[in-house]
Amino acid sequence: MTAFIAVDWGSTSFRAWSIRAGGQVLAESRSAEGMLHCAGSATGFAPVLQAHLAHLAAPADTPVLICGMAGARQGWIEAPYATLPAPVAALAGAAVRVPAEQTEGRDVRILPGLAQQIESDVMRGEETQLLGLALAGHQGLACMPGTHCKWALLQNGQVAGFRSYLTGELFDLLSRHSILRHAMPESLRIAPDDPAFLAALDLALADPAALFGALFGIRAAELLGTRSKGESAARLSGLLIGAEVGCQLRAAEGQAVVLVGQAGLGALYAAALHRAGLSFTPADAEEATRAGLIAAAREIWGTAQCKQ
Amino acid sequence: MTAFIAVDWGSTSFRAWSIRAGGQVLAESRSAEGMLHCAGSATGFAPVLQAHLAHLAAPADTPVLICGMAGARQGWIEAPYATLPAPVAALAGAAVRVPAEQTEGRDVRILPGLAQQIESDVMRGEETQLLGLALAGHQGLACMPGTHCKWALLQNGQVAGFRSYLTGELFDLLSRHSILRHAMPESLRIAPDDPAFLAALDLALADPAALFGALFGIRAAELLGTRSKGESAARLSGLLIGAEVGCQLRAAEGQAVVLVGQAGLGALYAAALHRAGLSFTPADAEEATRAGLIAAAREIWGTAQCKQ
Repeated sequence: MTAFIAVDWGSTSFRAWSIRAGGQVLAESRSAEGMLHCAGSATGFAPVLQAHLAHLAAPADTPVLICGMAGARQGWIEAPYATLPAPVAALAGAAVRVPAEQTEGRDVRILPGLAQQIESDVMRGEETQLLGLALAGHQGLACMPGTHCKWALLQNGQVAGFRSYLTGELFDLLSRHSILRHAMPESLRIAPDDPAFLAALDLALADPAALFGALFGIRAAELLGTRSKGESAARLSGLLIGAEVGCQLRAAEGQAVVLVGQAGLGALYAAALHRAGLSFTPADAEEATRAGLIAAAREIWGTAQCKQ
Repeated sequence: MTAFIAVDWGSTSFRAWSIRAGGQVLAESRSAEGMLHCAGSATGFAPVLQAHLAHLAAPADTPVLICGMAGARQGWIEAPYATLPAPVAALAGAAVRVPAEQTEGRDVRILPGLAQQIESDVMRGEETQLLGLALAGHQGLACMPGTHCKWALLQNGQVAGFRSYLTGELFDLLSRHSILRHAMPESLRIAPDDPAFLAALDLALADPAALFGALFGIRAAELLGTRSKGESAARLSGLLIGAEVGCQLRAAEGQAVVLVGQAGLGALYAAALHRAGLSFTPADAEEATRAGLIAAAREIWGTAQCKQ
């Protein structure tokens, strides 16, 4: 029997699971109706959630716990950032309830994002994943590749600090919208064992700042015929990922590293970590998100609700 | 009496001067009809040049010497890159003549761009400016701010090597098209004594790679209310320019530096060079371009033509 519905509502994707009291997944419903879709349409957020709840055949009194961009200022209901350090109890306690008139009376709550004040940084959604990882016993650094890649320090079951990198967005901007676009092939898929990717990784890992002086050269080399378009894309990716990992090397010293994987991008980061001499444990992003949502749901609705 | 017409035909601007044999400027004609305008219109290049020649009242037999993007592959007539090292004679000797049917029989030539093979890099237009600087006695490093900022080493009257940085284009992409755009004010004009600009300069000069970990924080700080939009723009500019100058510090050691100025951007680079502890001589970009074109014209048409 369903104890609650767990939802990961990101910028571009929606994922919901009905969860039993023991934490097992009963059913799943996913779509591309992310925050950007809902905020930009006349439909809005409520009908999207209702449709997925219907698809999951969720009883009318089953509560829903949401993490991610649905809680952003431009999302459904703003769930103001919680601040560091953030144990499960702090996140759960800061969850914001969606007004009942928008939920047909159902108890629907959105977990806050996480803000770091000293070195300004924010996240929405990853904090729940990180709690899931912490609860699974991970300690040390978590590397979370993506448009805005994040490196977080897990200590004593909570997030102690983190830093975001624009790496994914920079690759997109440079490969599609800068002068370098003239040197890019149609397919921007990079193989993690591409020699041009690996050579660029090594260059940037050894000296992250070398990236600056190497970017324009990508266009020049293609223009002068000394590098193919496929090699140019691999070089750009290797320079950017290598610079990011290179910047984190000092922080990674003596720490266990967990790589929160995504299909293609995860393999590129795995190659970078390997090249940097960092051993790491892979982790599944969705599993971590669900574990974080389950822990927070127990905190909010108590063991009775989640063990009925 | 006009000896020849000197033209600087850039991506977005056209500038022509009628030059006396002694090198003095008799008249000037300028517009926004750069390479991108001409290549993208049905008009093309020839009528634009003719209109400016008419405006300068250039006699039908006066030759024309052009530098810049008009010689690019996507320009008027491709003038293949000359390679390093590049004294005046090499550039002048590699000038390409525009077919007479496109010039009403006039002798019109386009100077080549400059290519560096070992660390792939290219320039078009700046090489002529650099020759002008070299002829004026400049030795050492020339810093040329712009969309694609260039640092060139001048030795014994020629360009010995150079490196381009995407700094200006990165500022544009990040401030207008990335997640950071949400943190930017309407006016992106930065004052060279803005404290947020100077603090970011210092950070990136000391550690150019620090930029990577600091970019996303610009958005986060504005979101958390700890930095205004004006400060965010100044910080982005300071981080980018500081990282570029910081990357060049080792190359600048023991070298004289000349800063080839442009109004607003030149002042920001002057602040960065000052903050980096580099003393420099300012130079006028247009004057340098004309000096390079005059020297090349003398090489091509001889002293007779240029002293008639």
